[in-house]
Amino acid sequence: MAKNIIVLGGDGFCGWPTALGLSSAGYDVTIVDNLSRRKIDMQLGCESLTPISHIDDRLTEWSSLTGKRIDFFLLDIAEHYHRLLSLISELKPVAIVHFAEQRAAPYSMKSAHHKRYTVNNNINGTHNVLCAIVESGLDVHLIHLGSMGVYGYGTAGMEVPEGYLTVEANNKQIEIPYPANPGSVYHMTKVQDALMFSYYNKNDQVRVTDLHQGIVWGVNTPETLLSDILINRFDYDGDYGTVLNRFLVQAAVGHPLTVHGTGGQTRAFIHISDTVKCIQLALENPPAIGERVRVYNQATETHTVRDLAELVAKLTGAEIRYYVNPRNEAAENELKISNERFLRLGLNPTTLGESLMMDVYAVAEKYLNRCDKSRIICTSTWKSSIPLDLVGKDNPSN
Amino acid sequence: MAKNIIVLGGDGFCGWPTALGLSSAGYDVTIVDNLSRRKIDMQLGCESLTPISHIDDRLTEWSSLTGKRIDFFLLDIAEHYHRLLSLISELKPVAIVHFAEQRAAPYSMKSAHHKRYTVNNNINGTHNVLCAIVESGLDVHLIHLGSMGVYGYGTAGMEVPEGYLTVEANNKQIEIPYPANPGSVYHMTKVQDALMFSYYNKNDQVRVTDLHQGIVWGVNTPETLLSDILINRFDYDGDYGTVLNRFLVQAAVGHPLTVHGTGGQTRAFIHISDTVKCIQLALENPPAIGERVRVYNQATETHTVRDLAELVAKLTGAEIRYYVNPRNEAAENELKISNERFLRLGLNPTTLGESLMMDVYAVAEKYLNRCDKSRIICTSTWKSSIPLDLVGKDNPSN
Repeated sequence: MAKNIIVLGGDGFCGWPTALGLSSAGYDVTIVDNLSRRKIDMQLGCESLTPISHIDDRLTEWSSLTGKRIDFFLLDIAEHYHRLLSLISELKPVAIVHFAEQRAAPYSMKSAHHKRYTVNNNINGTHNVLCAIVESGLDVHLIHLGSMGVYGYGTAGMEVPEGYLTVEANNKQIEIPYPANPGSVYHMTKVQDALMFSYYNKNDQVRVTDLHQGIVWGVNTPETLLSDILINRFDYDGDYGTVLNRFLVQAAVGHPLTVHGTGGQTRAFIHISDTVKCIQLALENPPAIGERVRVYNQATETHTVRDLAELVAKLTGAEIRYYVNPRNEAAENELKISNERFLRLGLNPTTLGESLMMDVYAVAEKYLNRCDKSRIICTSTWKSSIPLDLVGKDNPSN
Repeated sequence: MAKNIIVLGGDGFCGWPTALGLSSAGYDVTIVDNLSRRKIDMQLGCESLTPISHIDDRLTEWSSLTGKRIDFFLLDIAEHYHRLLSLISELKPVAIVHFAEQRAAPYSMKSAHHKRYTVNNNINGTHNVLCAIVESGLDVHLIHLGSMGVYGYGTAGMEVPEGYLTVEANNKQIEIPYPANPGSVYHMTKVQDALMFSYYNKNDQVRVTDLHQGIVWGVNTPETLLSDILINRFDYDGDYGTVLNRFLVQAAVGHPLTVHGTGGQTRAFIHISDTVKCIQLALENPPAIGERVRVYNQATETHTVRDLAELVAKLTGAEIRYYVNPRNEAAENELKISNERFLRLGLNPTTLGESLMMDVYAVAEKYLNRCDKSRIICTSTWKSSIPLDLVGKDNPSN
């Protein structure tokens, strides 16, 4: 009998290809989603560059192409606890993969409304999942999509370990959760999540894997490429678009590449197809009962934003333009990460290469008539005092 | 002109005497409260041992006795953000004192419902206050009642510092927030609060003082003693009663003292009148703009639960009885705390003494006809597998 897996947030950018990947690998997948990402598209007046099909059509297509069935439940896990509990009790999943959070840092900083939505949605959603696992009495492995951004970006030459740090205090060696320094309200909720995992792991022995993921790039996976109806989201707007994907769309539509500040920010990256592989590896290598929360750094390489812009400019001939950084962060930072755990489990990273980048560029070109150029510039700032402007515009000598 | 202070949760056990204390000290106090503590009394079928007056009657009495006015707004800060924002914008308080959280660890562990209520109420309430301060554009000092319980109780001979710990990692000295190890869902929310303070302090320079308070004992302060209508709450039930106050009520009504486990748990304590003094000291010594979150350990002494039971037994002749510990915690622990900051600001601690304990005992005796003995035993357990029973009952040789 195949094993049941629930994918919370399985209609989203990472959730959808993961649901297909796990279904393809032989798991019985059930998607739970409140379709909030599609509703936010309406709110922001901006759609995925790729035309994404209705969830029912996606699942019917998957079934007719592969003979595999994925069930779908329209459910807000932050609101409807008892429906979530009964679903878990009924399906008895071996694992729950949890993507069901508001996941854009700029969106989380737009206004008090967006900050409050992000905190309420992410904290209550995650907490409801933990409560429901405990109340069900089942042994369910919870796999959570966290973020590298919880570590902060000031690691000053030190390699960021996978979750825990050994320090010396009062002449004793102690191992502590890596001290977090989140960079936005969104990232703050991921650190708050980590506290809940730690508590429910300690008190109730819930098995938890927390994946500290880098910035995802790319659009499709082998499964989403099977049909246009299965195509994945492709966000390019200032809130939900991720940096490299944004640059590739900007290049395709003839918009200057929008670098924030100096572009000296170093970030960790992962290709969407590796996201799917990592989740399957995490699923198939659960922590033991009683083991503390297992943390993986789910990223395969680091780059500065400026280097990525220069790479895309070289490949495509695009111009680079520097904007005032809307984020409240250091202009430049180092970032070294440890990602040994997934490599040891056999991950063979899909790193940045010209042909893969040109694949994404080709998708952008194919759908460039769907691009609303007015949504490209990031309009969310970390503080109301940060202007939306080009760097040096108030200083003609620059 | 007097300075405006908003006291969130100003109808509760710590909030009410603090509101009166600050009013007495010359501040213009506004209480915001949703009366949730009174509603929980109804839910639990247990009232304060002392008869507490309607909030309007309390405020009218205070005004007629002292000539000082305290305003009251019935408002749920976790729900009604915009009302909170307009109140802050209108009153322009120099400080907000924030008690408006579900504050009982046993209550937070009763069931999934109670866990979810505690997380939703505490996180959204605190986050709304932070958002509203930022959105108001005002410089408001936020003073938050946290808990010593966030540190965990396994400090192994190390003195718990006031919020921050210097450690050595990779041959560098770094100062980090003291690694938290909360002992209940309630305590977990206080650590999640701390993350929000840290983020809003970093991003928006909100001035925050976080008070890590010990277990409060005692009932009245000079202000609540002015009239029976001003009397403070006195909880003795298994959820909201604090340990020493519970022992004194148990002794007064002829119930055996209910020690959990071995009673070897060491805890930090503070008298309710010192709570009020500490908050005024924190208010009058705000952190500078740009200063990180200031943390005080708001406790004046530590004792084991067993020592307190023996002290009360000696004073009153009560019997001690040992119950299976409903909490999931170490049977015995050390606890040493630093509380230099308040001492340096001039706090003259009101420590445990026979006459003060007998004052509390006298209040319990006066109202013993209001005691529902069936509410004395703690019925909330940290895990469903923990039995409600006497220690050693299944082992006749004990």
